[in-house]
Amino acid sequence: MPIKRITILGTGLIGASVGLALRAQCFSGTIAGWDPDSEELHTAFSLGAITVLADDPLTAATESDVIVLGGPVFTILEWLDRLAPVLRSHQLVTDVGSVKGALCARAQGRYNGTDQPGFLPGHPMAGKEIGGAGNADAALFADSVWLFTECGAPMSRAARGLAEEWAAWVEKFGAHIRYLDPDRHDVLCAWISHLPQFVSTAMSALLEDEFAANSDLLPIGGRALREMTRLGASPFSMWRDIAHTNTEAIAQSLHALEQRLAHIRENLKTPELRDEFERANRFRVTKPEKKR
Amino acid sequence: MPIKRITILGTGLIGASVGLALRAQCFSGTIAGWDPDSEELHTAFSLGAITVLADDPLTAATESDVIVLGGPVFTILEWLDRLAPVLRSHQLVTDVGSVKGALCARAQGRYNGTDQPGFLPGHPMAGKEIGGAGNADAALFADSVWLFTECGAPMSRAARGLAEEWAAWVEKFGAHIRYLDPDRHDVLCAWISHLPQFVSTAMSALLEDEFAANSDLLPIGGRALREMTRLGASPFSMWRDIAHTNTEAIAQSLHALEQRLAHIRENLKTPELRDEFERANRFRVTKPEKKR
Repeated sequence: MPIKRITILGTGLIGASVGLALRAQCFSGTIAGWDPDSEELHTAFSLGAITVLADDPLTAATESDVIVLGGPVFTILEWLDRLAPVLRSHQLVTDVGSVKGALCARAQGRYNGTDQPGFLPGHPMAGKEIGGAGNADAALFADSVWLFTECGAPMSRAARGLAEEWAAWVEKFGAHIRYLDPDRHDVLCAWISHLPQFVSTAMSALLEDEFAANSDLLPIGGRALREMTRLGASPFSMWRDIAHTNTEAIAQSLHALEQRLAHIRENLKTPELRDEFERANRFRVTKPEKKR
Repeated sequence: MPIKRITILGTGLIGASVGLALRAQCFSGTIAGWDPDSEELHTAFSLGAITVLADDPLTAATESDVIVLGGPVFTILEWLDRLAPVLRSHQLVTDVGSVKGALCARAQGRYNGTDQPGFLPGHPMAGKEIGGAGNADAALFADSVWLFTECGAPMSRAARGLAEEWAAWVEKFGAHIRYLDPDRHDVLCAWISHLPQFVSTAMSALLEDEFAANSDLLPIGGRALREMTRLGASPFSMWRDIAHTNTEAIAQSLHALEQRLAHIRENLKTPELRDEFERANRFRVTKPEKKR
């Protein structure tokens, strides 16, 4: 097993959960960590998500077999820029970001050549509405899907070996691996991940405006309201970057939902409403109860 | 305690759960039940939600102290019509429907006079996305809110006594009682209960259309997707009546959300997006974690 040293750059919720999952699966090597927020970093360290506090992230990266990039998408893009010139072909970069096309475009020509470091874009389909290392969880990825996208030229043989071993660790976390090409990933995630977020944000913001002065009325809502607005707590810092880097696909899914809601609104008293419920029933009955 | 005999007309999910909750709280009187679907009725009976199978619903009602109306709103409206001429002022009708204005309008002049039966409209803010007596649960109302609306003239003294005792039973179910006037109830529920349902239906129907041919892609979505589409399974039969009887308030909330989604879509790359997230964060931080 060639992975002896891993550096996690960005030890927030997902990065720290990766560290905890590695430890829970008895990874015996070194896990160095770095985060722009030193409080996050020290929380991750005190929880045991990382075993070493990196003084300098670039040095830690150059000394590692695998570098895991966390944090918002723009931060990951920056790391791809900074790491490309200092890493070598026996090293692998992977990430946990929510958008993949922009990352592959940025890596183009600088990663995955025979004499270049490897880059295996990754996206665990798991998370929480509240970020931070303090909410990290070794079991966060259990029974969820972890998407990987191939990007660019075939990796060096050494990087390919690291990529295969990394994928094996991900499976040990309890995640189910799927491979998608980056553009397909971004369109799919616009529908099944980004749309739910923006709808939840819109509903929460709308209700905040409607009921701010009567906040005692809102707790009357039951489980449905809590579920539909749970993601309203998600941090803008993560979603700004996703909105910037997957704009078109997100805009298309939002527009389609707007039209759908208008259709329902215009048909509250017509038989069309039955068709919508039956379509929705088919969706729910056939797919969503199973988790993968 | 004057309530000795209760008849539940409509022994589906909510009606049967009311029966089970009464039994769980050691109601020692008779609970007669009737449902247009004899299978539902027999399921409710076999679960112990009712103690007597009513041969004739009107006869059972005339022999009862309290009559609980379940089922879709139009069905409840029909029962109000049929029961008004056969009940007397020492009897109380209550219901568990999702809309209250239409019920109060229908009861006007025929209930709550001194020589008329009492009518106490009620609305437990609890439920499941899948109906039916088989899903009934004695604990369904625990720690949820049960709304009551006053309607029309003050009840007879006897009916008022029954209403107070019924409210005491509802509290024994673990529910927290709130009183709202019927119009305020319907507007509030449009926002916090009906809007979440129609959004979930719209998202489920949209995803069914987008991905019916690629249904293996959908299970990739995580908890957020499952939560946001859970209510997609809700039966049209219940929601048709709600859409018909609370049309204007629902249409207004849907239209407001459409505008909000369009606003977000047009501002995916502007600072306005931050404002929406911050507004949503405020909503989530201040209210939704507590259940009442």
